[in-house]
Amino acid sequence: MSIDPASPMGGILAAIKFDGAGLVPAIAQQHDTGEVLMMAWMNAEAVAETLRTGRVCYWSRSRQGLWRKGESSGQVQTLKSFLVDCDGDTLLLKVDQQGVACHTGHRSCFYSEAQQDGFREIAPVIVSPEDLYK
Amino acid sequence: MSIDPASPMGGILAAIKFDGAGLVPAIAQQHDTGEVLMMAWMNAEAVAETLRTGRVCYWSRSRQGLWRKGESSGQVQTLKSFLVDCDGDTLLLKVDQQGVACHTGHRSCFYSEAQQDGFREIAPVIVSPEDLYK
Repeated sequence: MSIDPASPMGGILAAIKFDGAGLVPAIAQQHDTGEVLMMAWMNAEAVAETLRTGRVCYWSRSRQGLWRKGESSGQVQTLKSFLVDCDGDTLLLKVDQQGVACHTGHRSCFYSEAQQDGFREIAPVIVSPEDLYK
Repeated sequence: MSIDPASPMGGILAAIKFDGAGLVPAIAQQHDTGEVLMMAWMNAEAVAETLRTGRVCYWSRSRQGLWRKGESSGQVQTLKSFLVDCDGDTLLLKVDQQGVACHTGHRSCFYSEAQQDGFREIAPVIVSPEDLYK
């Protein structure tokens, strides 16, 4: 989905409560399987770009810049639905994830499960990070 | 699932990166349907209690105290699986949600979807908040 670029984004942006740093957490979920892929952050500019283009763009806290998901790996996220929670401070993006979401080459960033003695990997690497970023 | 209370939690807690306020965001997902129910925060004590008891306990930022999900509404979350993401700073809890997750009486907190002119509710109220907290 995308919002008509001529449409005012004001109503949508006003309903989102950005934190003191101007950011809001965004959960990405594969739209058809329900798999939770990752959680990242967005600022108002990333929200507006995502809605205008229909391709998910986050804010990278480490690089302090817009992070167009897949721009270096090719693993883009196409937006299917954009939701906000009851108190306006968390987003849920239903997406179609091309390839893998995680920089480690796992499909989802959530591949480590707590067991009696610590976390254990419960999902395979699908693409090697070397192939992902070559 | 729950961790043997006699088991050292050190390995699990050490793998989680709590933020400057000692908190980590936790996404709750219904384990069998994949529905994303809510996002809330945990501190180390909430993580340890959740793993020990198998019942989800968050940290309430507004009340500045442990928030045993369902203690006033009865809508408890039973823990099925506890995952951490690739960089250790977000949790994914697969749970069995009793009733509704949201204080508004919606099943999920994510019931408002962005459309051309703003957010629109796309899911019904299942239990009235009056009945939930009476």
